[in-house]
Amino acid sequence: MRVFVDIKKCYSLQEAHDSDGRVAQSESLGFIEDAVIVEDQGLIRWLGSRSEFEASRQALGVSSNTEIVSLSGTNILPAFTECHTHLVFAGDRSDEFEMRNQGVSYQEIAKRGGGILSTVNATRGASAEDLRALAQSRVAEFVKQGVTALEVKSGYGLSHEDEIKMLKVARSLKGPKVVTTYLGPHSVPAERSKSEYMQEIMNKTLPEVAKTRLADRADIFIEEGFFDPDDGRAYFQKAQELGLQITAHVEQLSDQGGAVLAAEFEALSVDHLVELGPEHIRQLGESKAPVCVLLPTADFYLKMAYPKARDLLDAGATVALATDFNPGSSPTQSLNFVGVLARLLMKMSLSEVVTAYTYGSAKALGLQADRGSLTVGKVCDFICFETEIENLFYQVGFHPVRSVYREGELLWNDKNKTV
Amino acid sequence: MRVFVDIKKCYSLQEAHDSDGRVAQSESLGFIEDAVIVEDQGLIRWLGSRSEFEASRQALGVSSNTEIVSLSGTNILPAFTECHTHLVFAGDRSDEFEMRNQGVSYQEIAKRGGGILSTVNATRGASAEDLRALAQSRVAEFVKQGVTALEVKSGYGLSHEDEIKMLKVARSLKGPKVVTTYLGPHSVPAERSKSEYMQEIMNKTLPEVAKTRLADRADIFIEEGFFDPDDGRAYFQKAQELGLQITAHVEQLSDQGGAVLAAEFEALSVDHLVELGPEHIRQLGESKAPVCVLLPTADFYLKMAYPKARDLLDAGATVALATDFNPGSSPTQSLNFVGVLARLLMKMSLSEVVTAYTYGSAKALGLQADRGSLTVGKVCDFICFETEIENLFYQVGFHPVRSVYREGELLWNDKNKTV
Repeated sequence: MRVFVDIKKCYSLQEAHDSDGRVAQSESLGFIEDAVIVEDQGLIRWLGSRSEFEASRQALGVSSNTEIVSLSGTNILPAFTECHTHLVFAGDRSDEFEMRNQGVSYQEIAKRGGGILSTVNATRGASAEDLRALAQSRVAEFVKQGVTALEVKSGYGLSHEDEIKMLKVARSLKGPKVVTTYLGPHSVPAERSKSEYMQEIMNKTLPEVAKTRLADRADIFIEEGFFDPDDGRAYFQKAQELGLQITAHVEQLSDQGGAVLAAEFEALSVDHLVELGPEHIRQLGESKAPVCVLLPTADFYLKMAYPKARDLLDAGATVALATDFNPGSSPTQSLNFVGVLARLLMKMSLSEVVTAYTYGSAKALGLQADRGSLTVGKVCDFICFETEIENLFYQVGFHPVRSVYREGELLWNDKNKTV
Repeated sequence: MRVFVDIKKCYSLQEAHDSDGRVAQSESLGFIEDAVIVEDQGLIRWLGSRSEFEASRQALGVSSNTEIVSLSGTNILPAFTECHTHLVFAGDRSDEFEMRNQGVSYQEIAKRGGGILSTVNATRGASAEDLRALAQSRVAEFVKQGVTALEVKSGYGLSHEDEIKMLKVARSLKGPKVVTTYLGPHSVPAERSKSEYMQEIMNKTLPEVAKTRLADRADIFIEEGFFDPDDGRAYFQKAQELGLQITAHVEQLSDQGGAVLAAEFEALSVDHLVELGPEHIRQLGESKAPVCVLLPTADFYLKMAYPKARDLLDAGATVALATDFNPGSSPTQSLNFVGVLARLLMKMSLSEVVTAYTYGSAKALGLQADRGSLTVGKVCDFICFETEIENLFYQVGFHPVRSVYREGELLWNDKNKTV
């Protein structure tokens, strides 16, 4: 048991559930001034103001032997959940960034060995140890921004062995809680036809990653030139039979009806949603719809339109934000930049951004019972920051996290890097 | 005398001067592998490869007593010059950011006490000591990104006393070399007419800041609703008589012909240049034209078009980049983000971005004889970074400066903050 004191303001979504059991996201964040948190076995046992704490001290079993941790008058927020990353990869596509900016066409870049297949080649060629070291340093970069739960996808192996290798690397990562997602159907490998590759996925890799529990979830990229809704339907069916949770890359470049298809299979989340019509927006507002994961940094780097976050929120959808960190279309790990884009270009309020990066993204991973807000019974995962909350997700490059706690333990602070 | 060794690659613009004496900016950055720099009295005395160094060691007067500093196999670049900031201010406009994003009009924000005049009120109300502390922490934020020369403007005082107060604060800042700019004609204060205020500027403040050398340069905001080209002409004339260097905010929101007007008065730089026609672009490409200072983060936050950097460079203009850091239209100090925007949305190559943030911005402050490249005789100001250069100005939030040297002395490193 630990008692955290000297908390200037403890901010969190107040989980007011509506009649469908959903948490309303459009409300302001609540806060408790001069707060105290009592942690026990990694969970929040009690949370309230200092004066309430003093009154219930004895009832809580806090004695003179209990460890007291001062948070030095900082403000706190629930730790962030980053729910969409492709952070296991080798190689580098900075040369391609330069070429694209100078007007070299995608075709020409592909001819010169660029594009996703260059990452596939580099990732296949790398040892698991090398991949792990690269991925672990990227995890550390997320942790110091306040992330204590992190999703990691495969999808640069594009063969049974290489996808398994990526998932093993993902499973081995230390620091935050890691959720792994099998994304075999990310692209079709150069050396095989789509149907050959899909056969391997359906008959070999998907069953194996489910059985060995290497993957928690199954993901697919439904897009013209990649996988179509029929592939999606077969894949979701199989994943569901195998007991895997479902997520999907949908409506990034064109409207394929992927979001609604994934919703049929009770997907946890549907991600990207740039090219989404009003009828689909309405359907994603329904009570059991998947979480809508919006990835504005990919839109920034691809110079696309931004998702209609305002319409989704107004329709009642649960929205999450994530970096989509990958070496091609979203080469950034900056939560701060994601949030600035969401506020400036997607009409999300600060409260909505914070809620999307805590509760929304936790729900996208099916973890909302355990995390996403500072609530009794949930994990004691929080970040301390020194500024007023209004200064978060405002200045690009300013994200003043001072320390990060996971299950009541210090995971990182800006003096003493523990990851 | 100091000898810097263990430099993996020493990158810098190679100063090839054209027949007009200008440095070509469109070329690739050159580099020396396994480089050595010999520093003496803050200047670069010698620069070359390790083997050349060994051959000329004796001729350079390097003895067994000479201090040898290992740069641990990092790459180095000339330190950055940040040539356009408004970093002396009090108050906070994060509330206004939220209102703007939620669709509250500028008029309504002004009515609620927002806009530039809210910064003026807060800055007038702050003591010089408080302003200095705020400004010094912002300077530190620039230094750790590799800035060793920094421009600081007044312009939130809008009265004789308050403008002088701001310039005194700017002059007192420690760490990098500071160039101060008087920007009395930034906006018209609420309590006076424009002509009353311009009289004070012309007859009182401008002469005083010139005489006391509180300001190195004079700046004006030429824009509809602010100051017009006639105000500009009178102001430039007076500034020139008083021996102040000239710079101007021009063509940010509309084409007023401000850039060409400033060029007539041999301005060092013309800044913003969003609304610039082809004829003016041609004129800014002429050999004696001012440096074109582009400020893409302001365009990002204001959701404007971006300046036509490609056209300016192709016309022969000298281009600089800067943050325009201020609490309203450009609330970011991120050099990294400026560079990513320049590459992604302004068609500048990586070499052009680095050159614009080193040579171009030094020239915008009239400092190109002393800094802006690693050249014998210039100041020994450089940064060390661990990644390959291709990874700079690419990932938003990734700007891996490991240490910063000014005049051969360590100014900052990521372990031991000296500012």
